[in-house]
Amino acid sequence: MNQPEETLDPQDWTKLREVGHRMLDDMLDYLRSVRERPVWKPLPEQLDQEFDKPLPVAPEGIEQAYEDFMQHVLPYPLGNIHPRFWSWVCGTGTPGGMLAEMLAAGMNSGVHGAAQSAVKVEQQVLSWCKEIMGFPANASGILVTGGSMANLVGLTVARNAKAGIEVNQYGLKSVTKPLALYCSAQTHNSVHKAIGLLGLGRDSLREIPVNDRFEIDIAALEATIAQDRHDGFRPICVIGNAGTVNTGAVDDLNAIADICARENMWFHVDGAFGALISLSPKLRPLISGMERADSIAFDFHKWMYTQYDAGCALIRSEKAHHDSFRVPSSYLSHFERGVASGDAWFGEYGVELSRSFRALRIWMSIKEHGIDKYRRLIEQNVAQARHLAELIDSNAELELMAPAPLNIVCFRYRPLGFTEEELDGLNKEILFQIQERGIAAPSSTVLNGKFAIRVAICNHRSRFEDFDVLAREVCRIGRELASNDAFDQVREIWSAAD
Amino acid sequence: MNQPEETLDPQDWTKLREVGHRMLDDMLDYLRSVRERPVWKPLPEQLDQEFDKPLPVAPEGIEQAYEDFMQHVLPYPLGNIHPRFWSWVCGTGTPGGMLAEMLAAGMNSGVHGAAQSAVKVEQQVLSWCKEIMGFPANASGILVTGGSMANLVGLTVARNAKAGIEVNQYGLKSVTKPLALYCSAQTHNSVHKAIGLLGLGRDSLREIPVNDRFEIDIAALEATIAQDRHDGFRPICVIGNAGTVNTGAVDDLNAIADICARENMWFHVDGAFGALISLSPKLRPLISGMERADSIAFDFHKWMYTQYDAGCALIRSEKAHHDSFRVPSSYLSHFERGVASGDAWFGEYGVELSRSFRALRIWMSIKEHGIDKYRRLIEQNVAQARHLAELIDSNAELELMAPAPLNIVCFRYRPLGFTEEELDGLNKEILFQIQERGIAAPSSTVLNGKFAIRVAICNHRSRFEDFDVLAREVCRIGRELASNDAFDQVREIWSAAD
Repeated sequence: MNQPEETLDPQDWTKLREVGHRMLDDMLDYLRSVRERPVWKPLPEQLDQEFDKPLPVAPEGIEQAYEDFMQHVLPYPLGNIHPRFWSWVCGTGTPGGMLAEMLAAGMNSGVHGAAQSAVKVEQQVLSWCKEIMGFPANASGILVTGGSMANLVGLTVARNAKAGIEVNQYGLKSVTKPLALYCSAQTHNSVHKAIGLLGLGRDSLREIPVNDRFEIDIAALEATIAQDRHDGFRPICVIGNAGTVNTGAVDDLNAIADICARENMWFHVDGAFGALISLSPKLRPLISGMERADSIAFDFHKWMYTQYDAGCALIRSEKAHHDSFRVPSSYLSHFERGVASGDAWFGEYGVELSRSFRALRIWMSIKEHGIDKYRRLIEQNVAQARHLAELIDSNAELELMAPAPLNIVCFRYRPLGFTEEELDGLNKEILFQIQERGIAAPSSTVLNGKFAIRVAICNHRSRFEDFDVLAREVCRIGRELASNDAFDQVREIWSAAD
Repeated sequence: MNQPEETLDPQDWTKLREVGHRMLDDMLDYLRSVRERPVWKPLPEQLDQEFDKPLPVAPEGIEQAYEDFMQHVLPYPLGNIHPRFWSWVCGTGTPGGMLAEMLAAGMNSGVHGAAQSAVKVEQQVLSWCKEIMGFPANASGILVTGGSMANLVGLTVARNAKAGIEVNQYGLKSVTKPLALYCSAQTHNSVHKAIGLLGLGRDSLREIPVNDRFEIDIAALEATIAQDRHDGFRPICVIGNAGTVNTGAVDDLNAIADICARENMWFHVDGAFGALISLSPKLRPLISGMERADSIAFDFHKWMYTQYDAGCALIRSEKAHHDSFRVPSSYLSHFERGVASGDAWFGEYGVELSRSFRALRIWMSIKEHGIDKYRRLIEQNVAQARHLAELIDSNAELELMAPAPLNIVCFRYRPLGFTEEELDGLNKEILFQIQERGIAAPSSTVLNGKFAIRVAICNHRSRFEDFDVLAREVCRIGRELASNDAFDQVREIWSAAD
């Protein structure tokens, strides 16, 4: 042919190799020294100019692209790999996970199915998950990007299995009775999002009140289901929490399992982080009953510290799972031989058809460290949460805002003589300053109408002393701010913000 | 504290560094030598023993985990990084993309939002995408795992914007008229999957016949919409194809845009691979009208050759997009200062809350190579498809099964004197042998009831000569098989399989 052929492979492999080794050294240095840097720092305004630049037409080359990364990207991270980052429920990742990602990206396997090792790796990871969660070996499962997708997968199967019609074929317009689902008022918003997406309407989700431990009120749940039946609704599913996002509360999963069995309802567990305490014989009684669920959603990138993104949905009934996502088509036929053979077609068990090889970093990390290490680290994080809760309880200036049964601690700085509104403003300001000074990165929530500093510990780098620092610095900054002059300023800022 | 503290960081960074550099060298060697290996090879049966091993309790260490990878995973890839892999619509990835993935995995950013560079990178990639696709700068968008998710996002917004009720709140039980959506009979099954998931019911999707170029029949589309209105349905959306999965056909997107404007319907384009021919002024007229869509779904990991997973949904109306996915919650509050500041919260624009830093590999690759390089590679793949189509057309033993307007070529080996059924069996056997011998990996489909060998070219490593090899080997194996004795065996195998 006349055309000159081009490729994205390098002309000079030696040069690419040099750049690659430099990147690897830089990143390992970066990980090793993470404790020495501030948790987070604000983005400088001039950074926007860099990211407003137009589409590059001509090549910069990989060295310049890397230089851009080093100058404009790496210095401004979220901070979640730092030992004192405890915002939301982010995990930290590991150095070995970074290397595993490089391997996966080199293979660049598309894991929709077919005869390839990546499928075998995912099957093995799923087998291990069933073992961890006490699910039977013939249960079904799939790796997804995270808890939100896993909740969506579980709730899709729940809807389709229990609606009483062929929802995928005929749609929710055809239901004979309006459907109803149940969860506690502390349930994660990915459940609300999923229910909206599924066409059920968020008004079909009954948010049941919680007790003072932030666990679902079982009597209220039963009463609501009975009332709904009386009113002509069809109750189809209860979503139980194995660790709520706000406080780590665990619903009474055995009671929910009993109700679902009796009422012929689907039992889904959102165990985004909490499901993994299955690993600990000591902690496992807290989530007793989870093993009776019809579906469980959880993440590896939270409390197994793997790189993003890595979540999992386990579904007890393989048939119900497959029926929900399978759409046969000639261009995706399976055969007995060739590339399109193989016995697992994950594209038929979830939303994604194109799927990355996210199983590899989980598989390699479990092999690298052994699962017992994760058990110890989870117990360590729980012990750290308990340590922080004790620090707070024993300090008259600090107030624990909720029980801390797992790895989440909500508290505030509470000097005498301040109104609730003033305390909200004061604690927001403390949070900002703790973050802005690079000391630590808790996040926040609102509990019973009160602003709380929230510490969620999915961090294998945190040490007990890091929580001493947090308690001490919250008090120090709090005292600074609560001194008369300083607080007048804060009050002004916060009333202006309202 | 008394507890000994553990971490997943290595005790010996020097050793980890050595392993890492060895991995990098191995993977670069692997990529450099890919052409020398068979495209694919069957998995040996004894491999299953390895992947049946129970959950590892004790640590193996990273070196042993890597050894397991080298022995059991790397040798059995899907094959999609090979120059002669043309199955489904898989991309190849790049060496630079592998390095970018390592960087992203090192940072391990959770990209739900917040004040961090990863958000800026994603915003910039989205700006570039809008520029490429001819969308206005104030349009909305999000990176997702792939075309299936991007179609789901687009169709969710379509449903919510056009249903005439607040679907997220009240659900599809509350629609006053049943909804109807429209696409060609050649539309990808991710659309059917999404419509099932969304609770619309697949029976609400009208599959309009195609013309002999496999493009939607516009007159039939108009007639069906009119009939549906007459019958009391509410037509809400047309899905147009910019490159169908079977043959690369492009629907008349301007005609669809006109219909949607006139009928107040949403216009969604599935441009999984084809949308990217926007990059080529020469090819762009083929997809004229796409820039008028309300939403577009496309992938980077297909025809921009980036690593999995990387798709994109663009939505013209930011408000409609945000309204569809936003669920406010106190633990996800945004603030003016601190970590939870920042002006883009992607968790409110898609299903995922936990999100990986998939923008980085796109950003770095575009910088590395410049966008014009992608234009040339896409044109190269189209020229290669044309070359293969000409080889087929000029060869009496081969039959082109459909026009090949883009990068997909469907054909079969067609000796004289065989029935249609026999031709199906013969061509399946040819496909298997081409794959099993490691020569090339096309996939297959069925067109007008006939089995076709299908070649989809999203491969920056393919050369024109690779298609000469394919045509020659198909004929060679075909002749072998069609010789009387051999074919009797094939016939037996295939009638047994029925």
